[in-house]
Amino acid sequence: MNGIIYLDHAAATPLDERVFAVMQPYFSDLFYNPTAAYQPARDVRVAYEDARHRLAMAIGGARDEIIITAGATESVNVALHGILSSGGHAVIGATEHAAIRGATGPFPHAVAAVDAHGIVTPETIKNVITDETRVVSIALAESELGTIQKLRDVATVIDEVRDQRLRGGNTTPIYLHSDASQGAGLLDINVARLGVDLLTLNAGKIYGPKQVGLLWVRRGIILEPLIRGGGQERGIRSGTENVAGTIGFALALETAQNKRHQESKRLASLRDNLQDQLTQAIPDLVVNGSPKRRLQSHLHVSVPGLDAERAVFALESRGVLVATGAACAANKGTRSATLIAVGMGDDLADGSLRFTLGRLNSEEDITAAATAIIDVIKTERTR
Amino acid sequence: MNGIIYLDHAAATPLDERVFAVMQPYFSDLFYNPTAAYQPARDVRVAYEDARHRLAMAIGGARDEIIITAGATESVNVALHGILSSGGHAVIGATEHAAIRGATGPFPHAVAAVDAHGIVTPETIKNVITDETRVVSIALAESELGTIQKLRDVATVIDEVRDQRLRGGNTTPIYLHSDASQGAGLLDINVARLGVDLLTLNAGKIYGPKQVGLLWVRRGIILEPLIRGGGQERGIRSGTENVAGTIGFALALETAQNKRHQESKRLASLRDNLQDQLTQAIPDLVVNGSPKRRLQSHLHVSVPGLDAERAVFALESRGVLVATGAACAANKGTRSATLIAVGMGDDLADGSLRFTLGRLNSEEDITAAATAIIDVIKTERTR
Repeated sequence: MNGIIYLDHAAATPLDERVFAVMQPYFSDLFYNPTAAYQPARDVRVAYEDARHRLAMAIGGARDEIIITAGATESVNVALHGILSSGGHAVIGATEHAAIRGATGPFPHAVAAVDAHGIVTPETIKNVITDETRVVSIALAESELGTIQKLRDVATVIDEVRDQRLRGGNTTPIYLHSDASQGAGLLDINVARLGVDLLTLNAGKIYGPKQVGLLWVRRGIILEPLIRGGGQERGIRSGTENVAGTIGFALALETAQNKRHQESKRLASLRDNLQDQLTQAIPDLVVNGSPKRRLQSHLHVSVPGLDAERAVFALESRGVLVATGAACAANKGTRSATLIAVGMGDDLADGSLRFTLGRLNSEEDITAAATAIIDVIKTERTR
Repeated sequence: MNGIIYLDHAAATPLDERVFAVMQPYFSDLFYNPTAAYQPARDVRVAYEDARHRLAMAIGGARDEIIITAGATESVNVALHGILSSGGHAVIGATEHAAIRGATGPFPHAVAAVDAHGIVTPETIKNVITDETRVVSIALAESELGTIQKLRDVATVIDEVRDQRLRGGNTTPIYLHSDASQGAGLLDINVARLGVDLLTLNAGKIYGPKQVGLLWVRRGIILEPLIRGGGQERGIRSGTENVAGTIGFALALETAQNKRHQESKRLASLRDNLQDQLTQAIPDLVVNGSPKRRLQSHLHVSVPGLDAERAVFALESRGVLVATGAACAANKGTRSATLIAVGMGDDLADGSLRFTLGRLNSEEDITAAATAIIDVIKTERTR
């Protein structure tokens, strides 16, 4: 990262060199198909299942509850298609990622509104749940504003719905799924404490390999398979196992969770520092999202009159890489669903920048970035 | 591979070190999300699209006809679900891979019988096509016996059906899909010459990275997406792009195709040598599959009275790694669909071994393997 200050960790994270090191033997040496009968292949199978076990441990689940996928988008499709393809209705939050909106698109569903901070309140969820609702999907943290949802409260609502259904003789199950791709390196992701029934994680957002994700599915929940074939991953996701990726994912998740207290403190300090400098220098700059429930990595600001796209390029020429909207989706030219959902006007939305901090950032980075950002905003606004 | 003779290339191939070298920069350095707006991310996008272009060139397709997936199983599910989810009927061959059988399972379909060599004849295809058939899926080469299908003839049948439908006013389209995962390093896979409408390839079978595949879809064919979300891969397969994997896949496919004449000749010679030694030493050994239409890498034999599973372990202790059935599927304990389809009796099926040769094998390997195999068969049969 010579001279580059990367402030887009929510879009992608570099593969941790130690994670890469544990994956490396599985590319060209221990390349065997883990289904083969001979010992070297059985050793690969053992390493793969050990990684699955460690992934389960990292979230407080059991190894037979973990489905390895090719990433968060596949995980949420496996979860939502798996529950909804045999009928029923879904509830999602208004700021859910494109993957959640896409996966529920073909099925009956309702969208729960969020408040101006991007928080889905338990009451709004309750209001849109019907007798046919089988799954509620709320992200642990939203990717643009970094808003941390009140998952535990949503889980309580769902428990109440379950009780009501039981008493009323409605046997339709209802599950809580959460996409925890954002924030897995900063927040508690213990499935019992979150109160979820299904959980999606993405290795590529926590310094693990790209193209690997997992879906944790509480024992007893039956999913209709999305990708069928040889019957791998307990028949839920067929295809030759991703051995190297899964082994890398396990170390990445363990590292993220082990470091999370320290790293969230460090990033909060850097982020607050950046926020203070920007708000002091640009008095009409608006800090978006929830002041209290916000990922320590995230700073999302709006500057009235700023052309954010131009600002991104101006910052790039000064070595600072930042995002305008959500970088994940190929939704260029369309307004961010999150910014619409929180009721942001066009002027503020067009002038909004997202800074997402991470392991690549030092205190010096942030000081230098603040200077560059302030300069660029001032210059761009005088054009 | 110290002292190990690997004869299971159909199950998995090691990642080519040169392929690994071109992937490596994209793990920790050029890790950017290709959807991001800044130049380093746009450079990653260019490299990714260049790889897509090279994959297209390698099969005589166009870049906008290539969908990158997480492997062959996903590719065939994208193809078959994509065509069948809006209605219609499928025809598959009796020896198709578990992925094809799995993907067509939920939809109306017919299975075309194969002859004793494992070949699906155009006539049997014709007999099971109905007015509702929308897709016929026949592998380029079968993975157990290595039988090379008469794809060109199947394509001709499908052309005839198209003509009949046109004349009869039946507007139902009919497409030919082929899973060319086996044999992509040995056979011509030009889509025009094969006469296919959709083609599946798998990087992990041609010394490329695992967990990467592609689906080539002839322009104009509309598929219902299987994995929905951010709209990547023209909306057919959402999820952050697999940049490193796709760049590796492109070099692996180019290398496989560039070397295929030389390598198929070399493997045919090694395979014929192995076959000659085995048939001479074990007079009642049966060579399975088609003598004429067989992948140069494949030797599938049955030895009456042999316990193939025991033989695999005995061979392993002598450093020779071979397979009993199809190694891809997690179908332990069940009889191979291919061996049932070609009408093989239980005794021969239970005594069958598959040797699949590849880049890791030298002439010395094959000589040493032949000695070990003959020894093990003789020893095991006298037990």
